[in-house]
Amino acid sequence: MKEKIIIFDTTLRDGEQSLQSSLQIKDKIKIALALDAMKIDIIEAGFPISSPGDFKSVQEICKNIKYSTICSLARCVKKDIQVAAKAMSKLEHFRIHLFVGTSKLHIESKLKKNFEEIQDMAIKSIKIAKKYTDDIEFSCEDAGRTNIDELCKIVEILIKNGVKTINIPDTVGYTLPNEFSQIISNLYNRVPNIDQAIISVHCHNDLGMAVGNSISAIQSGARQIEGTITGIGERAGNAALEEIIMIIKTRKKLLNCFTNIKHKKIYHTSKIISKICNISIPLNKSIIGKNSFSHSSGIHQDGVIKNRKNYEIMSPQDIGLKKIQLNLTSRSGRAAVKQRMKEIGYSEKNYNLKKLYKKFLKLADKKGQIFDYDLEELAFIKKNNKKNKYFKLKNLKISSTVSKKTKIFIKLYFGKKIKKIKIKTKNGQINGIYKALKKITKINVLLKNFQINSVRKGKNYFTKIKILMKYKNKKFYETNLNKDLTKAFVQAIIKIFNNIWKSKQIKKLYKK
Amino acid sequence: MKEKIIIFDTTLRDGEQSLQSSLQIKDKIKIALALDAMKIDIIEAGFPISSPGDFKSVQEICKNIKYSTICSLARCVKKDIQVAAKAMSKLEHFRIHLFVGTSKLHIESKLKKNFEEIQDMAIKSIKIAKKYTDDIEFSCEDAGRTNIDELCKIVEILIKNGVKTINIPDTVGYTLPNEFSQIISNLYNRVPNIDQAIISVHCHNDLGMAVGNSISAIQSGARQIEGTITGIGERAGNAALEEIIMIIKTRKKLLNCFTNIKHKKIYHTSKIISKICNISIPLNKSIIGKNSFSHSSGIHQDGVIKNRKNYEIMSPQDIGLKKIQLNLTSRSGRAAVKQRMKEIGYSEKNYNLKKLYKKFLKLADKKGQIFDYDLEELAFIKKNNKKNKYFKLKNLKISSTVSKKTKIFIKLYFGKKIKKIKIKTKNGQINGIYKALKKITKINVLLKNFQINSVRKGKNYFTKIKILMKYKNKKFYETNLNKDLTKAFVQAIIKIFNNIWKSKQIKKLYKK
Repeated sequence: MKEKIIIFDTTLRDGEQSLQSSLQIKDKIKIALALDAMKIDIIEAGFPISSPGDFKSVQEICKNIKYSTICSLARCVKKDIQVAAKAMSKLEHFRIHLFVGTSKLHIESKLKKNFEEIQDMAIKSIKIAKKYTDDIEFSCEDAGRTNIDELCKIVEILIKNGVKTINIPDTVGYTLPNEFSQIISNLYNRVPNIDQAIISVHCHNDLGMAVGNSISAIQSGARQIEGTITGIGERAGNAALEEIIMIIKTRKKLLNCFTNIKHKKIYHTSKIISKICNISIPLNKSIIGKNSFSHSSGIHQDGVIKNRKNYEIMSPQDIGLKKIQLNLTSRSGRAAVKQRMKEIGYSEKNYNLKKLYKKFLKLADKKGQIFDYDLEELAFIKKNNKKNKYFKLKNLKISSTVSKKTKIFIKLYFGKKIKKIKIKTKNGQINGIYKALKKITKINVLLKNFQINSVRKGKNYFTKIKILMKYKNKKFYETNLNKDLTKAFVQAIIKIFNNIWKSKQIKKLYKK
Repeated sequence: MKEKIIIFDTTLRDGEQSLQSSLQIKDKIKIALALDAMKIDIIEAGFPISSPGDFKSVQEICKNIKYSTICSLARCVKKDIQVAAKAMSKLEHFRIHLFVGTSKLHIESKLKKNFEEIQDMAIKSIKIAKKYTDDIEFSCEDAGRTNIDELCKIVEILIKNGVKTINIPDTVGYTLPNEFSQIISNLYNRVPNIDQAIISVHCHNDLGMAVGNSISAIQSGARQIEGTITGIGERAGNAALEEIIMIIKTRKKLLNCFTNIKHKKIYHTSKIISKICNISIPLNKSIIGKNSFSHSSGIHQDGVIKNRKNYEIMSPQDIGLKKIQLNLTSRSGRAAVKQRMKEIGYSEKNYNLKKLYKKFLKLADKKGQIFDYDLEELAFIKKNNKKNKYFKLKNLKISSTVSKKTKIFIKLYFGKKIKKIKIKTKNGQINGIYKALKKITKINVLLKNFQINSVRKGKNYFTKIKILMKYKNKKFYETNLNKDLTKAFVQAIIKIFNNIWKSKQIKKLYKK
């Protein structure tokens, strides 16, 4: 029979403590709600003694959670335990998570104690915690570097004193998978009362081994995995729970276990966490990265067009994504270009694939990524056609003061004609220019987002703008670099408007 | 005796093919030079048949490299091999990397062939490649899902035909560490001529197992590891070589092997790659992430102040970093606050640590991260002191047109006095405002960088600005959100100027 793996999320404790900025209470609640909706078994909501804000946020989270068990961290210190219990006191059931360093290094150089004193601290603290709850987890901090005989000894004592979950953290991310798996096997083989507790692991990613170690631990008997969504946490972070969850799902036959997690909510939750915590998820992040279900090289693209399974072991729908994309770059093959042309509505009768692919490679070597409107232009518009630049800026005047409305005046070429527009706005230059250009061109585009970065050149700063717009469900993306931020913005929009215009012309002529 | 692990970098092939945009030749050369300087053993420079730009970039890389062996990818197709050899023909010694799918799925649904046909293709291709070089590597694509009997069979044939390096890719990142390690052990136990070749592995990270699998493979006898710096590559990417290299260094006793890599160049190389490839390295990326050597929680900060080894298994200097930081957030403890105050020049005689820490927690709960100037303010300035806002904007007028100079007029409060400045500039509003404010305040600050993101609220876009300045070697960071981009920028700078001003006042009064 398959065994259940308990998923313990510490995004709000180990994750949050690692952020450049700590989080506001309302943001922590948002994250907790997303975790609860995923049916995370245990949410470690905070370390209440650490600050009044953290205490308050644990209290608030307790009021809002429906499914998950809430847990709070406490050192083996009376006050810590009391404050943790108080923060969760509105709940009927909650977990207190105690910890103490058990490695020689931690005991001697951090705690300045000896092994016996550590044991006493642990036993006393468990007694105090038991007054508040019977759900006590105990972490042997730095277990990965703890002498195995001493680790077995303390685990036995902890269980004897009523600890229900024994956590074995690889606090500094030092161990390798087979080594860590050995530690867990040793506990199972040598601790006589081990069957009276759940073994949990909490692995750090300093050497990139957090997930590998956690999975190896499951294979040796661990039944609770601690980590965070996106893998944030102290230093190089914790085990990324989205990976753990999807490994257990994808390799369930080999591992012979399961989780209760609503994996279709993984992507959504990761987006919430990345936004609130202001952390960027790299393109190539396993499971939740933008590229993790996209295929780039010609060989891979050809392979997935023939059979998705050639290069996909999970489906993007499993984590709640709708579509996957083939990125078109100079590494893409003919098959992908043909497929994309078909998707955007052109049959091979309308264009010459061989010629298109040759032009495609040339532009892709130069430009990098190729968008739909680029493909259309390559397929249907002859080089140096004047129609490529229908819109052109003739003049732009802006005058703004702190208190009055901003005045914007734009003169724009439409082919050979010139049109002009004048507007006043309370909403600043960016909003004003965007609205004025939409109005004058009658192109009903949506500004999805823009991003501006400074590029220092000598004594001046150039602004590099990236802008993404959507027009009739099609994405248009442009960049521009200019010393003048306003000009950079205007020119990027005009580039996009020209691409929209071209795309319309082509559609009229060629679309089946 | 310790055995050498050959490091094979495919940042320019598998890494590049996954980027949103393919790279320019000059950029690929920059990356190749950085890899060469690190003494990477083998650089896979490209897949020359894939595009004229890729062919040319392999040619150019060959002209520039001193230490590393250059390798190019080729399918088992005559033309591919010829083009690969031609691209590298200037070199005396080079490697050709052939590959073909060996799993049932790849053979049948991608290649539409049978196992015997695949063998023939491989043997023929090896013969062609041998005309150009004796350094042939052969990849059994999708080896991770290939039947083990067939894998053993084809590996034996490949070696018999003169392949020097057999690569076992986990192409879709499907296997788990002990499973992958079994595959390698099987090859060593069952392929009779296995001692005549190097076994290489090439692991993908779809389940986050790329590095774990690679390390497990070393423990079973693999002697070449393929990957990329930063871990970029198709989908969720390849094994991150910086992790592999540092694991081998940190755990050399356990693994009983070594590499020849100049690990002190890891950080520098990762920076070059992240900049050129336009990929952000997440804070918590193992080894090279900004947080990977920084400590946040009070317990960890206290621990490293007592003994770095408590929470550090590598030193930041090992990868070429100079300093490490304790981030100050509401998770930080008293010890870290005291330490930081000492570092910025204040003895405990000058301030009350208990009071400071209380205020610190309150502000940190609110603001997130605490900077040096915040600490100074908390320690030395009474609440609601008017001096907190010495500078205040009275008026700002801007007028700009496309062709003429931008005119900027600023009126600024200095305490109760008002000063004004008027400038004309060809360099746009941002440069103009920055210079005008520096001039009028006589604060000789350096704008390090700024970043602006759009925040959509209803029909309007707010601009969220983040700005980092440096004043006398001290960092000043502010954010601001405003509908008007220019105002957001001005106000953020004024906030910083007020902080600089306060910091100066405090220094005069309290610094020992």
